[in-house]
Amino acid sequence: MPDVTERCSVAVIGGGVIGSTVAWTLAEAGHRVTLYTDRAVEQSTTWVAGGMLAPWSEAWPGDSGLLDLSLASMRAWPGFAARLEQDEHRVITARGSLAVAADEGDVADLHRVMAWLEARGEPVAPLSRREARALEPGLAAGLRPVFQVQDELAVDNRATLLALRELAVRAGATIEQRRISSLASLPQDQVVVAAGPWTSELLPALRVRPVKGEIMRLARRSFSAPPPRRIVRGWVRGRHVYLVPRPDGMVVGATQHEAGFDTTVTAGGVRDLLADAEAVFPGVADYAITDMSAGLRPVTPDNIPLIGRVDDRTLVAAGHGRNGMLLAPLTGSAILAELDGQPLAEAAAAHPRRFA
Amino acid sequence: MPDVTERCSVAVIGGGVIGSTVAWTLAEAGHRVTLYTDRAVEQSTTWVAGGMLAPWSEAWPGDSGLLDLSLASMRAWPGFAARLEQDEHRVITARGSLAVAADEGDVADLHRVMAWLEARGEPVAPLSRREARALEPGLAAGLRPVFQVQDELAVDNRATLLALRELAVRAGATIEQRRISSLASLPQDQVVVAAGPWTSELLPALRVRPVKGEIMRLARRSFSAPPPRRIVRGWVRGRHVYLVPRPDGMVVGATQHEAGFDTTVTAGGVRDLLADAEAVFPGVADYAITDMSAGLRPVTPDNIPLIGRVDDRTLVAAGHGRNGMLLAPLTGSAILAELDGQPLAEAAAAHPRRFA
Repeated sequence: MPDVTERCSVAVIGGGVIGSTVAWTLAEAGHRVTLYTDRAVEQSTTWVAGGMLAPWSEAWPGDSGLLDLSLASMRAWPGFAARLEQDEHRVITARGSLAVAADEGDVADLHRVMAWLEARGEPVAPLSRREARALEPGLAAGLRPVFQVQDELAVDNRATLLALRELAVRAGATIEQRRISSLASLPQDQVVVAAGPWTSELLPALRVRPVKGEIMRLARRSFSAPPPRRIVRGWVRGRHVYLVPRPDGMVVGATQHEAGFDTTVTAGGVRDLLADAEAVFPGVADYAITDMSAGLRPVTPDNIPLIGRVDDRTLVAAGHGRNGMLLAPLTGSAILAELDGQPLAEAAAAHPRRFA
Repeated sequence: MPDVTERCSVAVIGGGVIGSTVAWTLAEAGHRVTLYTDRAVEQSTTWVAGGMLAPWSEAWPGDSGLLDLSLASMRAWPGFAARLEQDEHRVITARGSLAVAADEGDVADLHRVMAWLEARGEPVAPLSRREARALEPGLAAGLRPVFQVQDELAVDNRATLLALRELAVRAGATIEQRRISSLASLPQDQVVVAAGPWTSELLPALRVRPVKGEIMRLARRSFSAPPPRRIVRGWVRGRHVYLVPRPDGMVVGATQHEAGFDTTVTAGGVRDLLADAEAVFPGVADYAITDMSAGLRPVTPDNIPLIGRVDDRTLVAAGHGRNGMLLAPLTGSAILAELDGQPLAEAAAAHPRRFA
């Protein structure tokens, strides 16, 4: 029988979806957790995110490591969401996704993705123009639908983060708004660094860089076309855009720039997002722009996150790129398992030792 | 010799550039003025404006009435600006304007404007591509410059409004933030309705309708191309765009929609503004978007404002369309002259009696 008095005190650094999930998971397991976050919840990268759980339509041919990791976490999501939704939090906003292409080159790219997924036996289904129009009448007439995935989910990233923080506190975690610039100064037995693109400041041996993404929130107006009911992933002349449904509109994302820690929303970024969104779903022109922001995806050299033990006192849970929301449940479980000395086999590919 | 005790108490309704100018002008002349405004200064239409004083490049062939009115007010602007700038308010942000065209049709339209202005003897000068590139190196390479006007001005609309409010108060006016729904309830001897598109609510016999305009503010970043030093008016495939310099960037405006009292910023409006701005000045793509908003231009059936006496107790100063900032000095003088029983000849074309 586990003895809770043997449970240790843990500092979790970073209040985004990863840090909050880790804090909740550890606190529920009986650890004494303090979550350190240096910014308000509205300023976190998670707050800016689109909230797409799309391991298949976000996959890239050959990236088996990331897909396997994503699928392991996706399997945990229904139970995770059920826990988050126990109170009044509405987390899941849509089910299913369509992948559509604008031109011949986009069609070819998407066919390659589909062929690779089919060869792995993944649940992707070809999608005809007729089927696509029946499912989403608002799609642009000239688009070329390629495939659909029934099991992908859209979640409300903001509701998710608030629910996670609440559950963490309810499980006994303490949240402290404070910037941590040195791990040595922390009083806890164990430290989990979940600081996204700022992780390298605390753990210089690990390389996590910021990749800027601009994103917009659009609200339907009384006379607007209704928003899509599924996630729509558009490949538009070599660029990618996603439309993620929300009850009152949609999230449109996201640009990709290697721009350091810059979070400026630029004229060019917004121009591209609007053009691509309109190429996929012309009705957006009538929508109100309610929010424009930029977040910093934490990206590792091999695009696979860093989840695991770094030294006797330190663990890392960072570098989740565009998949922080999706990978949160697996990350929480993997960090708990590491603390217990029983590393999770499913998370082995993400262990930081690969860069040692 | 005028006896200030004969001066009357005046209510001015509307806190935009017109109401504030009228309040200041009347207070300075010794009237006891109360300015009623139902919104914070940041919510006024004037706050959203671009601040272009461009009677020539905004003129339309045949609209002599409006151009004459605009020129009369333009002559008053240097003195007006000097008064506003007496303290630390920086009002004028640029001098001179260029009119440029994107395609053949735009060139033809602009040539018609120029020909009409030249026939009137107005100070417009043809502009070659070489001259345009020397003046504004950031202009798009394929553009067709058509003419320039040395005497047009850009003003900081926000600084202007704040200065006007300050001067009005200093001259003895009182500002009350309160919505006025009936003129009868006001205690003052005389009433000036300067309520922009809401004027018809108080004076139903006069027709002033709102014409929505979306506008953006862009800030230069460290590596961006510098903003234009002059106003740039672009005619882009039948649409109009203006770039108005600010010390740290520019204002880009403005869409035009007959949409009632709606002030939603739409995806389509922003898409058009960005596309047209980029067609004129490609460097804007790198700029930060710092503000997007929509204002309601107050427009009359003949596009000429309503300035003058309506009945023994009531005057109107409204319906200035896109020219509120430009027409402010003339409007202030005209209302003062009307109160004094000596209507201003230059403002005769704007008298509301034309709709009686």
